Amino acid sequence: MNAFEKLKNKNKEGKFICVGLDSDIDKIPSHLKKMHDPILEFNKLIIESTSDYAAAFKLNFAFYERNGYQGLLTLEKTISLIPKDLLIIADAKRGDIGNTSEMYAKAILDKMDFDSITVNPYMGEDSIIPFLKNPDKLIFILALTSNPSSEDFEKLKLQNGMFLFQQVIEKIKKWNKNNNCGIVFGATNSEELKDNISIFDSLPVLLPGVGAQGGSLEDVINIFNQNNRNEYIINVSRGIIYKSNGIDFNESAKNEIITLNTKIKKLLNY
Amino acid sequence: MNAFEKLKNKNKEGKFICVGLDSDIDKIPSHLKKMHDPILEFNKLIIESTSDYAAAFKLNFAFYERNGYQGLLTLEKTISLIPKDLLIIADAKRGDIGNTSEMYAKAILDKMDFDSITVNPYMGEDSIIPFLKNPDKLIFILALTSNPSSEDFEKLKLQNGMFLFQQVIEKIKKWNKNNNCGIVFGATNSEELKDNISIFDSLPVLLPGVGAQGGSLEDVINIFNQNNRNEYIINVSRGIIYKSNGIDFNESAKNEIITLNTKIKKLLNY
Repeated sequence: MNAFEKLKNKNKEGKFICVGLDSDIDKIPSHLKKMHDPILEFNKLIIESTSDYAAAFKLNFAFYERNGYQGLLTLEKTISLIPKDLLIIADAKRGDIGNTSEMYAKAILDKMDFDSITVNPYMGEDSIIPFLKNPDKLIFILALTSNPSSEDFEKLKLQNGMFLFQQVIEKIKKWNKNNNCGIVFGATNSEELKDNISIFDSLPVLLPGVGAQGGSLEDVINIFNQNNRNEYIINVSRGIIYKSNGIDFNESAKNEIITLNTKIKKLLNY
Repeated sequence: MNAFEKLKNKNKEGKFICVGLDSDIDKIPSHLKKMHDPILEFNKLIIESTSDYAAAFKLNFAFYERNGYQGLLTLEKTISLIPKDLLIIADAKRGDIGNTSEMYAKAILDKMDFDSITVNPYMGEDSIIPFLKNPDKLIFILALTSNPSSEDFEKLKLQNGMFLFQQVIEKIKKWNKNNNCGIVFGATNSEELKDNISIFDSLPVLLPGVGAQGGSLEDVINIFNQNNRNEYIINVSRGIIYKSNGIDFNESAKNEIITLNTKIKKLLNY
């Protein structure tokens, strides 16, 4: 199924939460550590308990590469556990010269069969275009990120009066010929989201920064709602997958995403 | 051994070429394709024939990820084939929020034991600092890249009158407390290198763009020489590893790097 369609379908069901599988061997419950592949076991139980309530799953590559090729095997096995009606995002933040980006697209979108990937725009158009070839995939390009140092470069003022991240968004709209571009926009500062949402046009948005990083779920939902915008997902990683550290971690994760969904539906008067 | 020391030692021997192992199953000689791991076999023969003449090897992650976890296994095995006095660079262009960059640093610099990695500065200081913790590693941060679209963002003029890539270089100098930062600066346009080399201070430089991408080896060598600068490496990937497509590909690669070294030594009056 087309990736953007998957996202829209879930949004229509009132599902806006992306479960971030930042699965860390040092943080998962200790009873799993005796398993053959503790991270896979952890992911399996998290997926089983949250997939009915999630809009998407996001796999953060760093947490898999940490275990070398075996970690990448865990990542590939995890993908196969996620129901196919859910968007599966490779949080890989790739971007390189054309022939290399093409190889990353083949690796992550074709070979590993992710629906979606996060990419870094620093190197410009020819580093992004190879990811956009397949209209069935959804490419989330970094605009404004959720970390404090986003001000170092992303928020620099250009001579044309725009912030760099705003110029990036303008370029993305031009690249979006296959209707398969999205943006990453940090939710840590609600004012920035409010001030900029009008320039997003209809681009789908992946919002990190809610929860452990301090962003407000209510603010995000209200701002999108007031601007008559759907097609967005709010990533929550640590706030769901490490809600409990005990034997009941998967039940706690399920309860947490249900709580978030209930809050969202109330805000949206579902 | 300290990574920067490795680079300096090779530069002192008149070695400035980094062999880029962008090893592509579609481009390697056909007689290797019947092997169990054709890419590993290809890399082994290239390394054996060029390591006496190279300053460094650079592994482009895209070309390994393309084969999924098995590709990452090939990558890890390749690292173990490279003599330890040579700098081994992970061309991975990573960069993410702090806790994720920390995980990438653990993965690539600790677990996989690369000496060096390329990183993307878009997300700012807190996305870079986790890579700089170990003073024995060398972190090449993208400044100006070698691709045509570097003009989209890297060459945007800021309100302070600088180009974005120049502002990035200024920040890198501030981050360089452990003397383990370097920059990536494209060699496709010699004028840009000439105009900017004075702001690099003593940062080591990784220069892509010579060869297949059109940059001039002579210009690069002359510009560094005229500015009394050592501590740089010129990456050549396709120009060396695919010099021949026949059974003699490794001999051709060896002859090519010897030709480049001879040219360099002549320019430097070695």
